[in-house]
Amino acid sequence: MNLERIQNTDLLDKVITAKEAALFFENGMVVGSSGFTRAGDSKVVLKALADRGKEAQLKITLITGASLGHDIDGILADTGMLAKRMPFQSDAVLRKHINAGEVLFIDQHLGETAELINNHHLPEIDIAVIEVAMIKADGSVVPTTSIGNSATFIQNAKKIILEVNLTIPTNIEGIHDIFFAGDYPHRAIIPITQANSLIGTTSIPLDVSKVIGIVYTNVADSPASIAEPDTKTIAIANFLLDFLRNEVKHGRLTTSLLPLQAGIGKVANAILEGFVNSEFNNLTMYSEVLQDSTFDLIDAGNLTFASASSITVSEKCYQRIFQNFDSYKNKILLRPQNISNAAEVIRRLGIIAINTAIECDIYGNVNSTHVYGTKMMNGIGGSGDFARNSYLCIFVTQAASKGDNISHIVPMVSHVDHSEHDVDIIVTDYGLADLRGLSPRERAVRIIQNCSHPDYRPHLLDYFQRACLQGGHTPHLLNEALSWQARLIETGSMKI
Amino acid sequence: MNLERIQNTDLLDKVITAKEAALFFENGMVVGSSGFTRAGDSKVVLKALADRGKEAQLKITLITGASLGHDIDGILADTGMLAKRMPFQSDAVLRKHINAGEVLFIDQHLGETAELINNHHLPEIDIAVIEVAMIKADGSVVPTTSIGNSATFIQNAKKIILEVNLTIPTNIEGIHDIFFAGDYPHRAIIPITQANSLIGTTSIPLDVSKVIGIVYTNVADSPASIAEPDTKTIAIANFLLDFLRNEVKHGRLTTSLLPLQAGIGKVANAILEGFVNSEFNNLTMYSEVLQDSTFDLIDAGNLTFASASSITVSEKCYQRIFQNFDSYKNKILLRPQNISNAAEVIRRLGIIAINTAIECDIYGNVNSTHVYGTKMMNGIGGSGDFARNSYLCIFVTQAASKGDNISHIVPMVSHVDHSEHDVDIIVTDYGLADLRGLSPRERAVRIIQNCSHPDYRPHLLDYFQRACLQGGHTPHLLNEALSWQARLIETGSMKI
Repeated sequence: MNLERIQNTDLLDKVITAKEAALFFENGMVVGSSGFTRAGDSKVVLKALADRGKEAQLKITLITGASLGHDIDGILADTGMLAKRMPFQSDAVLRKHINAGEVLFIDQHLGETAELINNHHLPEIDIAVIEVAMIKADGSVVPTTSIGNSATFIQNAKKIILEVNLTIPTNIEGIHDIFFAGDYPHRAIIPITQANSLIGTTSIPLDVSKVIGIVYTNVADSPASIAEPDTKTIAIANFLLDFLRNEVKHGRLTTSLLPLQAGIGKVANAILEGFVNSEFNNLTMYSEVLQDSTFDLIDAGNLTFASASSITVSEKCYQRIFQNFDSYKNKILLRPQNISNAAEVIRRLGIIAINTAIECDIYGNVNSTHVYGTKMMNGIGGSGDFARNSYLCIFVTQAASKGDNISHIVPMVSHVDHSEHDVDIIVTDYGLADLRGLSPRERAVRIIQNCSHPDYRPHLLDYFQRACLQGGHTPHLLNEALSWQARLIETGSMKI
Repeated sequence: MNLERIQNTDLLDKVITAKEAALFFENGMVVGSSGFTRAGDSKVVLKALADRGKEAQLKITLITGASLGHDIDGILADTGMLAKRMPFQSDAVLRKHINAGEVLFIDQHLGETAELINNHHLPEIDIAVIEVAMIKADGSVVPTTSIGNSATFIQNAKKIILEVNLTIPTNIEGIHDIFFAGDYPHRAIIPITQANSLIGTTSIPLDVSKVIGIVYTNVADSPASIAEPDTKTIAIANFLLDFLRNEVKHGRLTTSLLPLQAGIGKVANAILEGFVNSEFNNLTMYSEVLQDSTFDLIDAGNLTFASASSITVSEKCYQRIFQNFDSYKNKILLRPQNISNAAEVIRRLGIIAINTAIECDIYGNVNSTHVYGTKMMNGIGGSGDFARNSYLCIFVTQAASKGDNISHIVPMVSHVDHSEHDVDIIVTDYGLADLRGLSPRERAVRIIQNCSHPDYRPHLLDYFQRACLQGGHTPHLLNEALSWQARLIETGSMKI
């Protein structure tokens, strides 16, 4: 018995093994699990469920915060037990099953899933599996390195399994800010007015009668793999930093900018590292994930506060944070993902949103999810939540890749996640296109000239000019619009 | 001198003729004008500007609330003086110039334009032309039948011309609720928690030193043309009402539903008329436009309150309202369009959003703006503001039209305004597809089976099945995806 970790005495007799917990799951169940970008996920219960699933022939719907660690998404998919999965994933094995049509995936805005559950627009959650650092005397639980949708799952699930992670120091208590806006028609204002606004409680309220099992685990989060900045990502970062400097010069922003949101990945990492030791100071973040670069910026003194829904860092950074956790505690905050990604807050704070595109078209539409318009990569994640309501909506991508056989600027994107109405800035390693105040024909010229790879530039211009001969507000040649992606499928290259 | 209409004595000597007012405009200017869906637009100053423009060879950028009445958009476009136009239009003549590439049109979310102006992401407004009912002693102005972007134009413009409309009764004062959220980084909460929340002032504050002219007008708004419900629109309305009844039956909604938003047009009209004398009561609207059907619902006793950004009604309805205006005053409210369309409020109130699609694809993406993916119809209007953050996002369209030569359900939409992530329900005259909780492959089957026209159904199914053989999360055949629209251009029919 660990009385520090389980402070509610009614729950002490609920401690079971992961294998016992796995027996609670039945065919057809809807499972809500903690976990957001590999942080704070279930380490042993979902694994034990997968072990059982192979023989039990279970089919479940799995809803999480976002992606999970420890390859569990792939392991579950390989057992054939994942009937449906939402709202996000980034697992190569699961992806294969999704694109084969074997797992029905629902690609949702990360800020929406909790809404859909609360509004009963999704089936009821049968069991929630939630990683926690501790259970308080009142039964409320302190999450670990992510909140994700855990608060919503706990409120809505019929039954709850708690996974108490002993590797998480108990002094993590205090960095979570749990808030519920309530149900329609009496929804409350989300009263966040700054990245560091505290509006809720430090633990998630929980009805202890719903707890059917508590499992201990000693497994840490899967570490994030951090790709070092390279020539291309540094070029993108520099174009973007120059753009921001110009905004400061024209008085539209100060050197503190406005709260930053950055997607995960190499480019976002390079951009955030670009702020280190720059003239930009008193920066804040209101984002989804606290990454290595977040803590680098805090340590460098450029970033004063960061709010997100998870801490997803490399093993090295993880050690650094948790060995000096109290020194970071007043500089970071984790929130439920429907709060970190709330349209209301994003618009009110005036977020500068930086996300990665798979491809952009000459009119500024962005594909964030589908390769060739058909194959799911990871999912839209929070990019739509932020892009739609941000102060500045910035998308970054390489101009070309794979031996320059793929142009990431195309005549027409093969799937639209972010429409021309929402995209302000596109940046590649060849340059930056500021699309504010431009009509589609003006945008086309600017994107082609500033952002496209020189090998493709004349062909993009040629397409645009021939399309203009046919007229239209957004000139396109429908028989040719998707031919670049079709050629890539057929020949392995977009080259003409 | 009309001392009731111009109560600020400093401004009495500013009264000029429209022709004199037109002389203030110079080449290259950015003009912000009142007017939202034909209501509250400038009747005489823009007309005088057009008269002058023919010879003066002026080129201006014109920003409004939304569409204008009195054919002024077409008249201005025909003079060649419209260099750039935003954020919306619905004029056949202007549309022709836009699609010929002669007028650079920026199709914006109606809730965004004020943001872009406040954030200096658009060029500064040189002159604002604002229709008002009266000028108060403190210089503040009472708008007429719309607010649109008038408050933002008045706050941001270098100079202001006021058009005092004598046809608008002065007892209109009191139905406007003007609120400013302030500038970044200190933006305020928009504290609306119900459709009828009063959060601001009844007139727009104005710096009288910026007023360069006041012009009287006696011209009324262009009346709305109301299309009577027909077989198709009644079928759509009935499918939707049945769906809502089922939501009530399952306890997800009550018979008061949640606040309604409805786009303009025949279908929206039929749907709203369908609520008259139904079991749905104590309804509220939080929408963009108060239409004839709004007042019919109020008169029938089903609708208790309606908030919007304009009153756009038929001549008959106009008489009815303004002859009994005091009886409607406590049941309606007009707000700036960045408040009526604010993401924050739409999500908080839980709007049921009903908008019209030009075409929907089998995966639930919606095109609201572009015919053949190239030619602009009117613009996205507020549909994106509402679709993105609503409680239920509903799109309606005919299954087929033009002698059934056009299928409005297609393999892939030729332009995406609303992505599959946001669309909950699609309704045609053949049925309703509830897409909540469905993956793309499930959505395709449901949309094809429930919504498509029987002539096209087997061909849509055939496309989907062949695409599935190629695999993918969202199966498509890129060489064929846009072939239906291409065939329509070539042959005048989508028929295979």
